[in-house]
Amino acid sequence: MHKKIFKSFIFLFFLVLSAAAQELQSPDARLQLQFKLDDAGTPVYELSFKGKTVIAPSQLGFELKNQPDLLQGFVVSEVHRTEVDETWEPVWGEEKQIRNHYNEMAVDLLQQETGRKMTLRFRLFDTGLGFRYEFPSQEKLGHFVVKNERTQFAMTGDHKAFWIPGDYGTQEYDYNESRLSEIAEIGRSYKGGDAWSKRFSPSAVQTALMMKSDDGLYINLHEAALIDYSAMHLDLDPENLVFTSALTPDVNGDMAYMITPAHTPWRTVIVSDDARDILTSDITYNLNAPSKIDDTSWIKPMKYIGVWWEMITGKSSWDYTRDFNAVKLGVTNYEDATPHGRHGATTKNVKKYIDFAAEHGFDGVLVEGWNVGWEDWIGHKKDYVFDFQTPYPDFDLEEITAYAKNKGVEMIMHHETSASVRNYERHLDAAYQFMKEHGYDAVKSGYVGNILPRGENHYSQWLVNHYQYAIEKAAEYEIMVNAHEAVRPTGVARTWPNLIANESARGTEFQAFGGSKPFHVTVLPFTRLLGGPMDYTPGIFEMDISKVNPNNNSWVNSTLVNQLALYVTMYSPLQMAADLPENYELFPDAFQFIKDVALDWDATYILEAEPGDYVTIARKAKGEEAWFVGGVTDEQPRQAKISFEYLPKKQNFIATIYADGKDANYDKNPQSYSIRKVIVNSGSRLKQQLAAGGGVAISIKPATKAEMKGLKKL
Amino acid sequence: MHKKIFKSFIFLFFLVLSAAAQELQSPDARLQLQFKLDDAGTPVYELSFKGKTVIAPSQLGFELKNQPDLLQGFVVSEVHRTEVDETWEPVWGEEKQIRNHYNEMAVDLLQQETGRKMTLRFRLFDTGLGFRYEFPSQEKLGHFVVKNERTQFAMTGDHKAFWIPGDYGTQEYDYNESRLSEIAEIGRSYKGGDAWSKRFSPSAVQTALMMKSDDGLYINLHEAALIDYSAMHLDLDPENLVFTSALTPDVNGDMAYMITPAHTPWRTVIVSDDARDILTSDITYNLNAPSKIDDTSWIKPMKYIGVWWEMITGKSSWDYTRDFNAVKLGVTNYEDATPHGRHGATTKNVKKYIDFAAEHGFDGVLVEGWNVGWEDWIGHKKDYVFDFQTPYPDFDLEEITAYAKNKGVEMIMHHETSASVRNYERHLDAAYQFMKEHGYDAVKSGYVGNILPRGENHYSQWLVNHYQYAIEKAAEYEIMVNAHEAVRPTGVARTWPNLIANESARGTEFQAFGGSKPFHVTVLPFTRLLGGPMDYTPGIFEMDISKVNPNNNSWVNSTLVNQLALYVTMYSPLQMAADLPENYELFPDAFQFIKDVALDWDATYILEAEPGDYVTIARKAKGEEAWFVGGVTDEQPRQAKISFEYLPKKQNFIATIYADGKDANYDKNPQSYSIRKVIVNSGSRLKQQLAAGGGVAISIKPATKAEMKGLKKL
Repeated sequence: MHKKIFKSFIFLFFLVLSAAAQELQSPDARLQLQFKLDDAGTPVYELSFKGKTVIAPSQLGFELKNQPDLLQGFVVSEVHRTEVDETWEPVWGEEKQIRNHYNEMAVDLLQQETGRKMTLRFRLFDTGLGFRYEFPSQEKLGHFVVKNERTQFAMTGDHKAFWIPGDYGTQEYDYNESRLSEIAEIGRSYKGGDAWSKRFSPSAVQTALMMKSDDGLYINLHEAALIDYSAMHLDLDPENLVFTSALTPDVNGDMAYMITPAHTPWRTVIVSDDARDILTSDITYNLNAPSKIDDTSWIKPMKYIGVWWEMITGKSSWDYTRDFNAVKLGVTNYEDATPHGRHGATTKNVKKYIDFAAEHGFDGVLVEGWNVGWEDWIGHKKDYVFDFQTPYPDFDLEEITAYAKNKGVEMIMHHETSASVRNYERHLDAAYQFMKEHGYDAVKSGYVGNILPRGENHYSQWLVNHYQYAIEKAAEYEIMVNAHEAVRPTGVARTWPNLIANESARGTEFQAFGGSKPFHVTVLPFTRLLGGPMDYTPGIFEMDISKVNPNNNSWVNSTLVNQLALYVTMYSPLQMAADLPENYELFPDAFQFIKDVALDWDATYILEAEPGDYVTIARKAKGEEAWFVGGVTDEQPRQAKISFEYLPKKQNFIATIYADGKDANYDKNPQSYSIRKVIVNSGSRLKQQLAAGGGVAISIKPATKAEMKGLKKL
Repeated sequence: MHKKIFKSFIFLFFLVLSAAAQELQSPDARLQLQFKLDDAGTPVYELSFKGKTVIAPSQLGFELKNQPDLLQGFVVSEVHRTEVDETWEPVWGEEKQIRNHYNEMAVDLLQQETGRKMTLRFRLFDTGLGFRYEFPSQEKLGHFVVKNERTQFAMTGDHKAFWIPGDYGTQEYDYNESRLSEIAEIGRSYKGGDAWSKRFSPSAVQTALMMKSDDGLYINLHEAALIDYSAMHLDLDPENLVFTSALTPDVNGDMAYMITPAHTPWRTVIVSDDARDILTSDITYNLNAPSKIDDTSWIKPMKYIGVWWEMITGKSSWDYTRDFNAVKLGVTNYEDATPHGRHGATTKNVKKYIDFAAEHGFDGVLVEGWNVGWEDWIGHKKDYVFDFQTPYPDFDLEEITAYAKNKGVEMIMHHETSASVRNYERHLDAAYQFMKEHGYDAVKSGYVGNILPRGENHYSQWLVNHYQYAIEKAAEYEIMVNAHEAVRPTGVARTWPNLIANESARGTEFQAFGGSKPFHVTVLPFTRLLGGPMDYTPGIFEMDISKVNPNNNSWVNSTLVNQLALYVTMYSPLQMAADLPENYELFPDAFQFIKDVALDWDATYILEAEPGDYVTIARKAKGEEAWFVGGVTDEQPRQAKISFEYLPKKQNFIATIYADGKDANYDKNPQSYSIRKVIVNSGSRLKQQLAAGGGVAISIKPATKAEMKGLKKL
């Protein structure tokens, strides 16, 4: 009897808690979150910014495999609230310190029929929302398999969106700009992507997804802390304009294997009425755990060149010989093979790059195609494709190691895995050990092609776990990782700062594969870069690729100055000067900017930004009295308005301004530029004309009066 | 013009070569092989023994994926013949030396339309045939994917067969004895196998397949040197009695990924009119490559006991607590968990086993359930299931290591992988290193459950490669491997003699899971054991399992003496005495045989053998003047006729004869036995009655006159 009364009381208590909507606001009160259970007991959330709805009421939950769904029948059992305001120092980054300031609400849910518990944890920052599902250790829920995550993001209008198609195999698409309502139609006919592309729905897009509403809201959907889960896409219901999470399946079509206690990654909504706030939002990093590497002294930003662009353009090759139609490592005899003469990674050629790096102050030289196997590395789902340790006969590893060391240049290792993941994991310890023995402290890894284990997807839980494994094992060896074709980053570099860069989007290489849209670099900061730095490999000075390789008619859709600006606008602690040394030697004055520009920053100032149109950013070099400004535009010429108010007051500086020539444009005359030095102070203002596909780059440093002599004030 | 004539000549030459059948005979001329191309240019072979057809004309070839098949349109381009006669010394084995004596014919084939080359290599021994497909490195065939191997074995009649169903997931079946024509019908209704069984055709069987023809031929089909390929089953066309190879597919249904130069495993046909020749045939080992381990001094036969049968019977458990419905290694807190009190691998219990091993001269003690994770190790396709390094709180690894070392006993490591293969490979180096640090030189590994990567099969190429990887990596660490649930062995232990045993068939454990057929041990020597030693874990003295665990009503279908005989009849350099110490203490006189019996042999003499009925074997201990005889029968009582002619002439020996009691039988009175000592010499003959499900075991050693005093001559 007592028990019954108690039960009724509990039930009543649940009802009261469940019926009432739970509210949460951001520290600055501009963002409002409402959470409630609908009549079916389905969790629903809603988000507004300054009174405007950002996310209309949207459902949350899961379909599970072989057990009842976690979609409805919930009651609220408890609500926990807390506020956090702290700052932390990243090992590298756009700011010296990052403030982590949010109000949190954790809603404990009970599914009454099954007795299963689930917590929804919401964190509301001034720049947006993060929320995740948590599954505490509990009697009624141990193992479960996610069939579908059903997280909705209901849009309030037919926003403009910058999107690439949902794909289980590739992220290297040119961006589309369209209304939400146009996505499915464009998606149906959309071409592009790599040979191992796996599209799954015409209306699905990848995150980070950038949108702009007609009433001026900038809205970005992404995820943070993707660990032990599959990557999320967003599939749009074109009629109702509601996105639903679409995870990446494993070979059996399952989305994630979970064991309690467990949680999903954070789902993020970054929002503002000022596009610049999207770029400064630190939500993604803040939702990741602090660094798990205690001593981070070995993690260092790097500026590098590489034996790479010559292969990308087709001037030289990764492979060594034409003797083999198939290669079996350990069986195929390379010593007696006939070199075809186009191999890039020869001792002689690499030394040329080392000399150039040493002369111009680069930290490192990357060499691709140094190890045997490239004659037969792709297209056959081959298991034992590389051993990561056996150099080609014409690449004298010992000699090169000694030569580079003597010149004070670091060699950067290259591990193309050909997506043969078991093979890579089997060799990982030995390969990392080999690196350390030869003084390599950083590795560029690659996952080109169809995944092995065969049938797996690039962004499924199995693979997400692999990329993470490689990062963590690298940390054991004090190795920095720059992973290409790995899953798009989600701020994991806060926890594992040895992940100094990823590709995971369409990089500069596509400029030599037929070109990318000029507006690409005005979109990436609002999408791909929100999750972490990109090894975009800028710095191309020769846009006519046929001059590098007569058989390649590609054109780099960018002015030369646009290429310079990217070192500022595309933040990364790892920056390549991707073009051939001989192309830099033709433009030593412009090349000076690449040599000068910093890699790590105390502070970042977004001066102007509009996704798909332009971005202008100023940054202060870390621990130095030096500032750099970069601005890029899309295919439209425009006038950038550049302020200098971040400079210390009442002090003059010399600004070296690298500007597009008056007659410059990306498609006909990209190499026209001017360089001028002027005196600036914190009150200076610059209106700088940018060519179509062009940019502006400025380096600013204190100067003696003597140095300033003869220079004009801006 | 010259070229044309030359081409015609070549073509004519091919025609002549192709039209003529190629013949090959065994060194003793009893076996005859005929090879030809039929009118469609399909390779066909035929095998006879003493004029009787063993394999009727049977086709050879492949269906390939995404390229033309390799089934027809062949011409013979060249035929190479050679004879080999050599002997080699195994590291351990049934014989001190093994003779490798065969005539070989390699037929080079050219598929004219495609220009692809394939060689068929036949080796004819006195006891049978081995043949394989070889694909030389060639322009027109680099990579290829086997969709189906179409190797036929056409039977000449409706033979009696001893078979277990084809299955991608388990080999642990009780054998069926039936006519070939009955297989499909039995197969359709056949139950059994493990929970992760994957049957694929009612008419498919596993190799080694043992048959007997009505005209008295014993025929065995198996494979040798299964490396980098998937395991072969045989699927029967019930109307024509033709077996076709049925490989084990990967997750996508593909059978094997090949890169030239490549070859398949050997397909073997062992044949004789004397069943004993099947057991002495060394074809399987001879078709494997010589040892790749240079220094084999660390590989040693072992006799061991283990904390195991008490878990198998359900008396105690692998797991430690009932606190968890799911375990997350590194998260789940074992230190604060409540032990349920039935955990087998406690320090105290293990010490008891170490004491017993030391007292009775065993080399090693196996302990299962020593490491955390067993509360949640099966049924969820769990990835991170074990770490192979973290002991339970009640298992003091350091203390046990020291205790065992002090007593001169080796600890045997246990690595249950739960078939989570990526997880095992990730931990393999650390786990082996951990073993060596703690003085463990041998590991029992296990692959229970559904394979991870999910969707893969236990015997696909991917997994075959894994088992091989684990063996080769173990060799690097000088570790001996006893792999359970791994693919059935195919003589690979010649090349990697650190593979000292496998399970890979229905072992003694099934006697505690409801029982096995009494004839099982008369079949295994003709099937499973042809590929390599089995960790059968004999030596059960208490057949009524309810006396060990009141909740388990299983019955061991064997007499006590039958269990003794298995130490001789079931050859293995790794032999367990599987029962509980307290059961051995009840029968110290019978236990003496287990203590005495040798593990490694100079010579083996098959005295009597009939598959499914009986096997009687005598062996001479390696480097010792000691002989052991074992005989087993099926569910029928019988009289074994045992000769002693292998003993040195003109010398008397004491034979200790362990015999079934007159009233013994396997199902009602298994523990009735007698032990007598008699004097024997090379002329002695013994007719020994074996009970139903019974056996006989004899140890023979030289003795002084004093010792022989009072003993009768046999």
